[in-house]
Amino acid sequence: MTTAPATPHRVVVVGAGFGGLQATFDLRGAPVNITLIDRRNHHLFQPLLYQVATASLATSEIAWPIRYLLRDRPEVTTLFATVTGVDANTKRVLLEDGDAQPYDTLVLATGARHAYFGHDEWEPFAPGLKTLEDATTLRRRILVAFERAERETDPARRAALLTFVIVGAGPTGVELAGTIAELAQDTLPPDFRNIDTHKTRVVLIEAGPRVLAGFADDLSAYAQAALEKIGVEVMLGQAVTECSADGVVYGGHKLDAKTLIWAAGVRASPAAEWLGAPADRAGRLQVEPDLTVPGHPDIFAVGDTVMVADPDGNPVPGIAPAAKQQGHYVADTIKARLRGGKLAPFRYKHAGSLAQIGKKQAVIDFGRFKLRGTLAWWLWGIAHIYFLIGLRNRLSVALSWLWSHARDQRSARLITQGSSKVVR
Amino acid sequence: MTTAPATPHRVVVVGAGFGGLQATFDLRGAPVNITLIDRRNHHLFQPLLYQVATASLATSEIAWPIRYLLRDRPEVTTLFATVTGVDANTKRVLLEDGDAQPYDTLVLATGARHAYFGHDEWEPFAPGLKTLEDATTLRRRILVAFERAERETDPARRAALLTFVIVGAGPTGVELAGTIAELAQDTLPPDFRNIDTHKTRVVLIEAGPRVLAGFADDLSAYAQAALEKIGVEVMLGQAVTECSADGVVYGGHKLDAKTLIWAAGVRASPAAEWLGAPADRAGRLQVEPDLTVPGHPDIFAVGDTVMVADPDGNPVPGIAPAAKQQGHYVADTIKARLRGGKLAPFRYKHAGSLAQIGKKQAVIDFGRFKLRGTLAWWLWGIAHIYFLIGLRNRLSVALSWLWSHARDQRSARLITQGSSKVVR
Repeated sequence: MTTAPATPHRVVVVGAGFGGLQATFDLRGAPVNITLIDRRNHHLFQPLLYQVATASLATSEIAWPIRYLLRDRPEVTTLFATVTGVDANTKRVLLEDGDAQPYDTLVLATGARHAYFGHDEWEPFAPGLKTLEDATTLRRRILVAFERAERETDPARRAALLTFVIVGAGPTGVELAGTIAELAQDTLPPDFRNIDTHKTRVVLIEAGPRVLAGFADDLSAYAQAALEKIGVEVMLGQAVTECSADGVVYGGHKLDAKTLIWAAGVRASPAAEWLGAPADRAGRLQVEPDLTVPGHPDIFAVGDTVMVADPDGNPVPGIAPAAKQQGHYVADTIKARLRGGKLAPFRYKHAGSLAQIGKKQAVIDFGRFKLRGTLAWWLWGIAHIYFLIGLRNRLSVALSWLWSHARDQRSARLITQGSSKVVR
Repeated sequence: MTTAPATPHRVVVVGAGFGGLQATFDLRGAPVNITLIDRRNHHLFQPLLYQVATASLATSEIAWPIRYLLRDRPEVTTLFATVTGVDANTKRVLLEDGDAQPYDTLVLATGARHAYFGHDEWEPFAPGLKTLEDATTLRRRILVAFERAERETDPARRAALLTFVIVGAGPTGVELAGTIAELAQDTLPPDFRNIDTHKTRVVLIEAGPRVLAGFADDLSAYAQAALEKIGVEVMLGQAVTECSADGVVYGGHKLDAKTLIWAAGVRASPAAEWLGAPADRAGRLQVEPDLTVPGHPDIFAVGDTVMVADPDGNPVPGIAPAAKQQGHYVADTIKARLRGGKLAPFRYKHAGSLAQIGKKQAVIDFGRFKLRGTLAWWLWGIAHIYFLIGLRNRLSVALSWLWSHARDQRSARLITQGSSKVVR
């Protein structure tokens, strides 16, 4: 006598960032069918995105086709599609093309975009950095600014072209500022004939009282000094009140600058709106201790689209390791439930914070263990190569960095999506 | 007693492709000031562009910032600008932004685009392959076709999505067809759940009687057999009479296909129009035996924008080595003239023809020495790595190829410039 096999439990994961991918990876072997939906065909290693924007790395060095990462998982189906909503009553994820994907358990890992605090009209002038296209757009703007300066004869306009403003001094802002300074000081000087790229101004504007607010005080001070040493002008306690094609206004000052970069605010995906669930000011879902959405025990949410507190009551930071821990927890919870059990509430363990500053300098804050300077920079590099997926990209990124630092050469200084005709 | 130094002779080179760059390189040490103008910021290794289109290589592996290549040549100024004309009377190159660049000697190396034989309306449906943007656009179309097929339930529409048509069986068409077949047969199968990518149709349509018309007959026959062995359908003696969003019409047949690629015709840059000089049907300048434009002894033209005959009276092919030989000859002629001398007419030496077919197969035609198969493929690979500029890109391309062939993995399978929202 045989029993017909039960229909496997259907898990739908929306978003193949760090959280969604980790949940999918960790469900390996569980009696489930998984559908992983993303509107991009690639998983992106966001911590190194600023290096694509500053011409150090190629796009393919920090991105992987999602379905390639899951090729040996026949129970996982990857969908290249855009989600527009969730119908929690019929338990279906709604897709933009009219299809709907039924689920038994849903994992929302839909991330966040940059936000302008009610000033979305600033976005064209001060783009942010979340996707590969953001990075190649920024790269184009940065490189074109130097090209235009080379041909500009008016001193004031030339100075504005050689002024780069970064708004927000978190890790991304600090890393961008340091790398642009490095580009101007070390990589570009021999290439230009009419301008001296050493005269480039890189201005880092932060509303708070220090750079790298997530790090210990002494590391913040060290990072600021290291940035200033390579020529970055750090403006603290200054709120930006206007961004335009001509520059930026902060603390009553107007600064003429043709390149502005936004690294300040974050706005969560509309996952909370899809469910009509409670959210904070940045749109982040407030979830239960087991990362389920209040009133929806079959819907989990992880990563940048949720607001969770760590054991001390502080908000869990929007960084890759946090999203991965949450993805891992959700996979374990789903497996436990299928066995009829449950897990203790999610507990975030902060492994540490790292930021590169430029010129072979970094700061590392592991709580009791803190490190700064060149040794920190080596650890930073090794850690990031370790967390890349696959030997091939590790070798490739290591080769690119080796070349950048041995030769002051950037491998990806390409202006694409527009000839000189389009961009001038 | 000192003499004031004479104003150096001003050479303007328009175009930093193989011909213009070679002329600039070979003028090293000559008593000239050089201005090199290009509307792109990068030199592109076009012979491997099809590998970017088929996700094997990253853009930065086959492109270099022009001013970086000339960083140690203080007498060379690189201009990122678009040329709109030449005023031969006042000896000035006219730029789109209103500037003008005076010259004593002008070198036009402005290349060619693909052409549709009077059917420019086909371009949106059957894009060609000349720039990095062309390559990333094609890559996106190819990868998106597989993604859409995976989600398509109608068998006829799914078949059309899995049908790839390449028009033109010269080296680019053959290389694209072979590589797309390889992608479908070897790389993609484990990644998809609903479609069998082995069922992909790759159709290569050629108006002439054989593939690779520039090669010896037996190599053409071999290449065709090799293509057919990996599943490419070769249609010879068939003129395409219509391209649309639904497919292609050739020889009275209609073939439903969602991805068409144009590798058939070439149209020269408007250099002949700028000068009102005689040109052939493809717009190529007819130049004197010393590569000057008739009536303009101070204007040279080289590469794909000119029509020259080899010593046997056959047209010199539009390939990189031909453009480089012409650039070299022009640099030597300029140097000879500055010394008061002149050179014998330009003589093209055909070094050989190479084409990759896919699945570790290539054909090489060095005249008396011919080679085909896997050994030819190794030689093809080594030759192409040798001709790349710089150790860094050589290592990087070698690494990419090693991975592609050892693992059937493509490193650059990224759909960019458009999420699923935009492309569906």
